[in-house]
Amino acid sequence: MSDYPDILRALNASRTEDFLKRIEGKRPLFICTIATTETAKIPGISAAGKNPELTDYTPSADVEFLHYGRCRCIDGLPVTPDGIPTPALITRAAINLSGIPILVVDGGSKVKPQTPFLDVGGKPGRDIRTGRAVENVTSVFERSMAAGRDLSKTADYLVLGESIPGGTTTALSVMLAMGLNAKGKVSSSMPDNPHHLKLSVAREAMGATGIGEGELEGKPLEAIAAVGDPTQASIAGLIMGAAREVPIIMAGGTQMAALLAIINGIDQSVTDRLAIGTTSWLIRDISSDLAGLVSQVGDVPVMAANLNFTESRYPGLRAYESGAVKEGVGAGGVSISSMAMTFGRITRTSLQEEIEREYGGIVSKR
Amino acid sequence: MSDYPDILRALNASRTEDFLKRIEGKRPLFICTIATTETAKIPGISAAGKNPELTDYTPSADVEFLHYGRCRCIDGLPVTPDGIPTPALITRAAINLSGIPILVVDGGSKVKPQTPFLDVGGKPGRDIRTGRAVENVTSVFERSMAAGRDLSKTADYLVLGESIPGGTTTALSVMLAMGLNAKGKVSSSMPDNPHHLKLSVAREAMGATGIGEGELEGKPLEAIAAVGDPTQASIAGLIMGAAREVPIIMAGGTQMAALLAIINGIDQSVTDRLAIGTTSWLIRDISSDLAGLVSQVGDVPVMAANLNFTESRYPGLRAYESGAVKEGVGAGGVSISSMAMTFGRITRTSLQEEIEREYGGIVSKR
Repeated sequence: MSDYPDILRALNASRTEDFLKRIEGKRPLFICTIATTETAKIPGISAAGKNPELTDYTPSADVEFLHYGRCRCIDGLPVTPDGIPTPALITRAAINLSGIPILVVDGGSKVKPQTPFLDVGGKPGRDIRTGRAVENVTSVFERSMAAGRDLSKTADYLVLGESIPGGTTTALSVMLAMGLNAKGKVSSSMPDNPHHLKLSVAREAMGATGIGEGELEGKPLEAIAAVGDPTQASIAGLIMGAAREVPIIMAGGTQMAALLAIINGIDQSVTDRLAIGTTSWLIRDISSDLAGLVSQVGDVPVMAANLNFTESRYPGLRAYESGAVKEGVGAGGVSISSMAMTFGRITRTSLQEEIEREYGGIVSKR
Repeated sequence: MSDYPDILRALNASRTEDFLKRIEGKRPLFICTIATTETAKIPGISAAGKNPELTDYTPSADVEFLHYGRCRCIDGLPVTPDGIPTPALITRAAINLSGIPILVVDGGSKVKPQTPFLDVGGKPGRDIRTGRAVENVTSVFERSMAAGRDLSKTADYLVLGESIPGGTTTALSVMLAMGLNAKGKVSSSMPDNPHHLKLSVAREAMGATGIGEGELEGKPLEAIAAVGDPTQASIAGLIMGAAREVPIIMAGGTQMAALLAIINGIDQSVTDRLAIGTTSWLIRDISSDLAGLVSQVGDVPVMAANLNFTESRYPGLRAYESGAVKEGVGAGGVSISSMAMTFGRITRTSLQEEIEREYGGIVSKR
């Protein structure tokens, strides 16, 4: 096996080696599940949009960019309120270099993407403070499971990413409801992680349903319905449908820890087929604790693409080094996958060059 | 290569041999594109439903049956007015035995399937006699092309089927508009092919647009928009996106001849990557002329699964031998594909046993 010096073995190193061996040279399918929620519009919760109302556009704009190299439902790229661009730039660069196919799944988005997308019957998420966050969770889960079964036959393994503004807050709520010690551990797309605000929103959500912390242990679909988000129902279904057939990289940060807990609550034996693939920014983030979350569920491999934007020409990318954005749209997992697929011929350097090229093209068009 | 005695080489035999060699042992993806139209509700046009209003349900019921082994939006199975069951029975049997993965594409259906499906932005078709049959053809075509590009990376080749009531009438209209000699050549799901009715509907449609026969030669997307149906826009896009990468079986009867003409009008060079896969009932049908249609476009391989329901326990299946149904939902192409994938281990006999088993299970549930 190649060494993959640009992939950090962040947790459970020897199982991570095994996982990398299993996917080396193999053909993945990247599935990006998108959704929107009203939770993301609570001021201060999400930086996945120039302003809270724009979070309705971000997921669709992200996958439009992945497909076409430019967004259709918005001008330019999705950015944070500070103008830092979407991590879809990283994902697209990895896809450009590797040719990894992409499939968009609409878990429930208000603004539909102008791309082909798989409909699994999902609806946009409500504000979790209603305590009725996600409609028809069971049917979305079940349809996604049917899709996962078929999609597992179209690739050697799956890479599952997401784009959902406010996703770490719904991740926090679901983990708390299921009894994980998640306080202060979820990540943020902002340099200053608003833990206090997230926790108070999560607690208000649980208050509205009348459930206490840990009361939904072993009831993950109930937890999603009450205080979660639509991507959780869909990604959990995809995993349950596919994991018996193929390995799966859960491409994301602390949101994927929540999904791990959800899967573990449905069928512990599935957890063995999973790994988390993320970015070094997420792993090195001192305001969150992915390892601390994953360890509460099981000894799942966690690996990270060791990207570094210090030398970027663009301030918007250099900002990643100060803790902005960090992860999303499967950026870390797809980067790892592109490296493993090509036996390490795609490196952090070639990825970064392609990212600079892509971003340069967009910046110059403005 | 295996002999494949259960696959008829119906046209261009040596190119058919080459095509079979290319797909032998390879992994296909079956894509079933569905849509509904108001055209199908013209009395006497379609037998793809117990009555004209039920044609809105047939495509979704077909793919629900493929996914789950039972329909969800209707009780039982889609049947003709005489109670003859859908060819989805054949497709499902081939999928059961081979494990071929399936993806549903919604080209534009009024009743959405309760399965996962790929949304390409399509709308149900209007009555072609309006002369404005299909909305936003270009955007559906383009999105399907984007999907085809990615899907071509998920399989060694694609099998493209359809379920759209009234599809041979819209096929006829498009072929006439494009200048093919198609009169009296399209197939029908009824034993008595209503050629006169279809032709008068097609002529009324062309009259409404003010175009004469052949006037849209070389303008296939315009022909679809004026007198075609939504599956044509979507399947044409899928083919244009995928055919550069992988071989494609167009799984169907005379509707696929119309698609061949459409593709040929967009880019002749793509025609080389295509083959038609159908059933022996279609090939032997004296009321239609698939070979006569295909020959007007090019020397495309045409092969047929040599199925035979003479010995079936069920009158509903024996009726196929008297010219009912004949083809649809990719039945012929998926059967062929299941044989080629397994080097001939799946045979017409094993398929027929599985069809009897599936149908028996459904008949006994009533």
